Amino acid sequence: MEQKSFFRLIFLIVTACFIISFTSTNFSHSPSSTTVLLDCTTDSSSSPLCASRNFLFNKKQRPLPKNDPKPKPKNHDHVSDTPNHPLDPLTVVELNKVRSILYSHALFTSRAPHTLNSVVLEEPDKDLVQKWEKGNTLPPRKASVIARVGLDTHVLTVDISSGQVKLEDSPVRVSGYPTMTLEEMNQVTLAPFSNADFNRTIISRGVNLTDVNCFPLSSGWFGKKEENIRVIKSQCYSKQGTVNFYMRPIEGLTILIDLDTKQVIEIVDTGPAIPIPGSTNTDYRFENLATNPDKTRRLNPISLEQPRGPSFVIEDNHLVKWANWEFHLKPDPRAGVVLSRVRVHDPDTRETRDVMYKGFVSELFVPYMDPSDAWYFKTYMDAGEYGFGLQAMPLVPLNDCPRNAVYMDGVFAAADGTPFVRENMVCVFESYAGDIGWRHSESPITGLPIREARPKVTLVVRMAASVGNYDYIIDYEFQTDGLIKAKVGLSGILMVKGTTYQNKNQVKKDKYGNEEDLHGTLLSENVIGVIHDHYVTFYLDLDVDGPDNSFVKVNLKRQETEPGESPRKSYMKTVRNVAKTEKDGQIKLSLYDPSEFHIINSNKTTRVGNPTGYKVVPRATAAALLDHDDPPQKRAAFTNNQIWVTPYNKSEQWAGGLFTYQSRGDDTLAVWSDRDRDIENKDIVVWYTLGFHHVPCQEDFPIMPTVSSSFDLKPTNFFERNPILRASPNFEHDLPICGAESVSA
Amino acid sequence: MEQKSFFRLIFLIVTACFIISFTSTNFSHSPSSTTVLLDCTTDSSSSPLCASRNFLFNKKQRPLPKNDPKPKPKNHDHVSDTPNHPLDPLTVVELNKVRSILYSHALFTSRAPHTLNSVVLEEPDKDLVQKWEKGNTLPPRKASVIARVGLDTHVLTVDISSGQVKLEDSPVRVSGYPTMTLEEMNQVTLAPFSNADFNRTIISRGVNLTDVNCFPLSSGWFGKKEENIRVIKSQCYSKQGTVNFYMRPIEGLTILIDLDTKQVIEIVDTGPAIPIPGSTNTDYRFENLATNPDKTRRLNPISLEQPRGPSFVIEDNHLVKWANWEFHLKPDPRAGVVLSRVRVHDPDTRETRDVMYKGFVSELFVPYMDPSDAWYFKTYMDAGEYGFGLQAMPLVPLNDCPRNAVYMDGVFAAADGTPFVRENMVCVFESYAGDIGWRHSESPITGLPIREARPKVTLVVRMAASVGNYDYIIDYEFQTDGLIKAKVGLSGILMVKGTTYQNKNQVKKDKYGNEEDLHGTLLSENVIGVIHDHYVTFYLDLDVDGPDNSFVKVNLKRQETEPGESPRKSYMKTVRNVAKTEKDGQIKLSLYDPSEFHIINSNKTTRVGNPTGYKVVPRATAAALLDHDDPPQKRAAFTNNQIWVTPYNKSEQWAGGLFTYQSRGDDTLAVWSDRDRDIENKDIVVWYTLGFHHVPCQEDFPIMPTVSSSFDLKPTNFFERNPILRASPNFEHDLPICGAESVSA
Repeated sequence: MEQKSFFRLIFLIVTACFIISFTSTNFSHSPSSTTVLLDCTTDSSSSPLCASRNFLFNKKQRPLPKNDPKPKPKNHDHVSDTPNHPLDPLTVVELNKVRSILYSHALFTSRAPHTLNSVVLEEPDKDLVQKWEKGNTLPPRKASVIARVGLDTHVLTVDISSGQVKLEDSPVRVSGYPTMTLEEMNQVTLAPFSNADFNRTIISRGVNLTDVNCFPLSSGWFGKKEENIRVIKSQCYSKQGTVNFYMRPIEGLTILIDLDTKQVIEIVDTGPAIPIPGSTNTDYRFENLATNPDKTRRLNPISLEQPRGPSFVIEDNHLVKWANWEFHLKPDPRAGVVLSRVRVHDPDTRETRDVMYKGFVSELFVPYMDPSDAWYFKTYMDAGEYGFGLQAMPLVPLNDCPRNAVYMDGVFAAADGTPFVRENMVCVFESYAGDIGWRHSESPITGLPIREARPKVTLVVRMAASVGNYDYIIDYEFQTDGLIKAKVGLSGILMVKGTTYQNKNQVKKDKYGNEEDLHGTLLSENVIGVIHDHYVTFYLDLDVDGPDNSFVKVNLKRQETEPGESPRKSYMKTVRNVAKTEKDGQIKLSLYDPSEFHIINSNKTTRVGNPTGYKVVPRATAAALLDHDDPPQKRAAFTNNQIWVTPYNKSEQWAGGLFTYQSRGDDTLAVWSDRDRDIENKDIVVWYTLGFHHVPCQEDFPIMPTVSSSFDLKPTNFFERNPILRASPNFEHDLPICGAESVSA
Repeated sequence: MEQKSFFRLIFLIVTACFIISFTSTNFSHSPSSTTVLLDCTTDSSSSPLCASRNFLFNKKQRPLPKNDPKPKPKNHDHVSDTPNHPLDPLTVVELNKVRSILYSHALFTSRAPHTLNSVVLEEPDKDLVQKWEKGNTLPPRKASVIARVGLDTHVLTVDISSGQVKLEDSPVRVSGYPTMTLEEMNQVTLAPFSNADFNRTIISRGVNLTDVNCFPLSSGWFGKKEENIRVIKSQCYSKQGTVNFYMRPIEGLTILIDLDTKQVIEIVDTGPAIPIPGSTNTDYRFENLATNPDKTRRLNPISLEQPRGPSFVIEDNHLVKWANWEFHLKPDPRAGVVLSRVRVHDPDTRETRDVMYKGFVSELFVPYMDPSDAWYFKTYMDAGEYGFGLQAMPLVPLNDCPRNAVYMDGVFAAADGTPFVRENMVCVFESYAGDIGWRHSESPITGLPIREARPKVTLVVRMAASVGNYDYIIDYEFQTDGLIKAKVGLSGILMVKGTTYQNKNQVKKDKYGNEEDLHGTLLSENVIGVIHDHYVTFYLDLDVDGPDNSFVKVNLKRQETEPGESPRKSYMKTVRNVAKTEKDGQIKLSLYDPSEFHIINSNKTTRVGNPTGYKVVPRATAAALLDHDDPPQKRAAFTNNQIWVTPYNKSEQWAGGLFTYQSRGDDTLAVWSDRDRDIENKDIVVWYTLGFHHVPCQEDFPIMPTVSSSFDLKPTNFFERNPILRASPNFEHDLPICGAESVSA
């Protein structure tokens, strides 16, 4: 026991030193100067838990470009931020007010432990927002709070100016729990080390406790073990010899932890016979990789240059204006990034027209495909369980975003309500890949000397969430032709499984000669990359020329010709089906029964009589293959269709339910949609799910090059003619004069 | 009649002046100085026909950048080019030799009219090419010639050094005709004007003959009219008031022309009652569009800058080396661009390894979806009928390709065998869109200060073919992670249909209230954008680590768990099926029965025992919906599956058959594949078809912003670990110093 305590102490000290060594607290509104609610600030501020939160204030991660000809303005400190728009996120001042208001509320004065799992703006009603114009007074500012007090969850609304607190749902009676806080995740990483059996198991594997990293893994909901108790699982890795500890799993060791008390409930170890994979070749950091002089040609620097500066402005911190677009942009702890009031200027009518009221990543679903004890539960819902925005780390200038990018910080509330700043969480930049926006050349046979071409320049809004091993890159890309592309990139590190196999030729075969199902690919000695899926479900409250829209399935069908009608036997025609109720809007894509999916305003037409519209254009995707009765698929039933259409309902924003953690699937998009409400000529919301199957291969080791897919929102008879027409070509005399010599070179 | 002749004369003069006005003949090896085979050079060199060919020598289309800090070397004049590689295209000197050799051959000394429809390198056998190394003597240089003599087609091989001519197939007995020559297309544009009925029809519509542009439209094959005669159709447009004559169809007027004699066979006019749409708002040229000062923000210039120059080299005119890649690149009159001997350097093994022996666009299929007389036959096969490379016009620097691009010319043979140069036909450049090659950030809870990110820099090879109205942009994009992306972009102008309708509310309804099938969308007054498809079929002779490969379908299947096995009810597993014969390689993609498609070398494994491989990764695509017995679909039966796998056969390169023009579908990829030959562990060719459905919308008027899709060739257990690992991040001190001031500003 003494040995155990000693190791624990060493571990805690080393971990704390590690974190402190690269963090600094320079946030002027220091958490320790505010009234405190939670344990953290009463502990020593050097504890890993607090250091972790302090890390969030760290500005060291943003190396200021030295030789930038136009240095970007330093992100401001947010202390004096005021809201300028009804949809602006809560400011530092407002978050502190909310915290004070809550602190004096009866719910939080009890001795029961309490956590604020979410403190965000309670958005004003849509009509108020739509009516609001710059210069008007803001609608009353309110905070929507989800809190855990003792073993209960509460939903509250706090009126910031009046100080009034309204208990919306108290305590919450539906299944599921709120999103974990970063502090809870941090505590869970330490919890196993307080268990003697755990420490013994680690040591028996010949691993130093100081070399062990444990990771909080949401446990899903499968019945027994997850009933009436908020639990989490933890699995551990050896970081001995590598920062890429994900490649060194301590396989089969799963610790079940009470997420409220942080007590270890159960330890299961199915893997003592499985060696921990080696660290060779797992590091991916630039400074540790010898760039050996082989035949690979070194790349000369390449850069997107805009010496006259970017063409967009961000007014009042959140209102982005570029080319014919304008929209409100804000970081969000759960969704990552929220786009609101997306509007486009029509050069023909000279109006600024509504396209989308609100768009964001509503939920993710990442099921792994191994039914064994240590893997079956890995069926993550990253937004609702971990907070997609909370996991968005600062973007790395020059490499996560190009040199011409402008950054936006997130201002969120910690578990005790203290505001903190996530610097450089979002970037905005103009992109030009050398692609062609449109072109036409005439063949000499027509006698017309036409050589028209336009470069394709777009505006990208980007965030990247690192949910443990995986890195999700979310881009919203605006085009001058009126198209919005939502792109999901997957990078980061695989979640791998330890195995006794060192070579595929050792894999066991049954009497028929069939190989054992590895549930993945042998990537390196003792390492299996486990098959898994990724689904990203987008909430798209399109308001095409106003809120009342209809969803039209334009079905492409083969039509056989009548005898004598034509030398052709067949052609393809379109059949328009206007969706009357939600079930008409439940769409399963088909390559052989294709459709277009229009969101139209049937009350407004173009000059020649087409209803104005946008269409959702699916691109490469994958469909869930799991049994609909499998518990994870039931919880993620929102992936059963690629498209759903629901009537607008302020409470229906999170496809897996507001309380996704340990949810049972009784409050998902699928459940709402099955109510089959009317959706014709109504304010409707479209949901699109983008899927990926991932069968790992050795090229995913030790890091994964970005794989991406996307879908488009495309104007369809929205404009009289294409607005890109007025785009200017590049002229040599407009382009920059650049030199290779750098100041420091 | 006198009036008719007068108009004809005026038309010819104006057309000729038009063409001459923007062309110049400065090709030093002037066609008129060589021995002549065809009519063109015996005519006045100012005739439109010859001017058209001379146009091809025109260098005026390539404005040399004035302020480029590193001016690109002027493309050389090609007169002294010598072949350096067994796969190098025929040079000017070689083409002239072929021409002289043929000229003295009996076949061409007869008085029968003759045309050289194709003169290209007869590539040496694969094993010779593979064995060849720089410094070795080249294998014997030969030309493969397809000629039309009188009413017969001949296939010949010309040994350039010995002067020997081998008649391979003489005359050809299979269905179909060779690709049209540019000269033939030009003659067809003029043919209708020699017909009095035609001229009367035009004048009766109130259109001046000088305002009419007629266009050669391949007629397909439907039986009667196309039997035993080489025919083409022509339809005409009014260019009065616009260069965008495609928007002003003279609807319903179709002229059937004998393509050998250029005589009008038949004129059908179903459209005298249909007005010619107006010219308002159809122009798309920058200088003619008033950039009205509206709310659209003007974009500041943006440019891809590489002041230290590009990172690639093109050795000996055709061998491209960039990062870990090397490949042979050549323009081709039929395929557009051909990539050969694509190899990648493996940083771990330090070998340069084979990936693909040859890759190119084999055929296109573009069926329109209107069964009426003037439209049913529009089922184009752009490579075999028009020559995808012949239609590739010079790329526009700064707008078709970015500033850092390097250009490559095509050297082709005219119909009389004279070589001509298509300048700037291909461009090569490094692209960086601000995207992320790979990244990983660690959450603070792991205590590791990881913020690694790498910019995604790629190498793009581009060509753009303008097949009449449509512009196809073909990109081959190489990534440092070993992936090759083939991307097809569609831009240009719609082929539209005239209609009496000015508004959708005028569309006729039947007694049930169903609207008349417009076969498209009303885009503007009297203009219907007709529904159509695009299919682009790629020939991919993958040779993964050598020629002998197998095709493996890795099927993803739901597996239900055994009772008691797991709290999960289901998971997804892979089932590998090695294709034994061609029918196993006929693949129809399915979202709900997904597979990966691996091309493996089963004789070579990675260290841990995975067979080395690449996979074909389909992305967004469309499948043909036409009846398989519909004549156009029979001719384009190669689009019946998305993937086919055939054993390598030098004669099977063109998916629609060598003689696609008026083919009957008896020599397509589908016919070859149905022979069901063995394909396991053999030299195999993979064929992938990328499809697009296009239901036009008003945003396609008057030009179409680029719509694109792609597929990937992706290393799959080819490398031991990802080669992108060694990619360098961007450092500020490496990036250029740029100023906005331009020299001329």
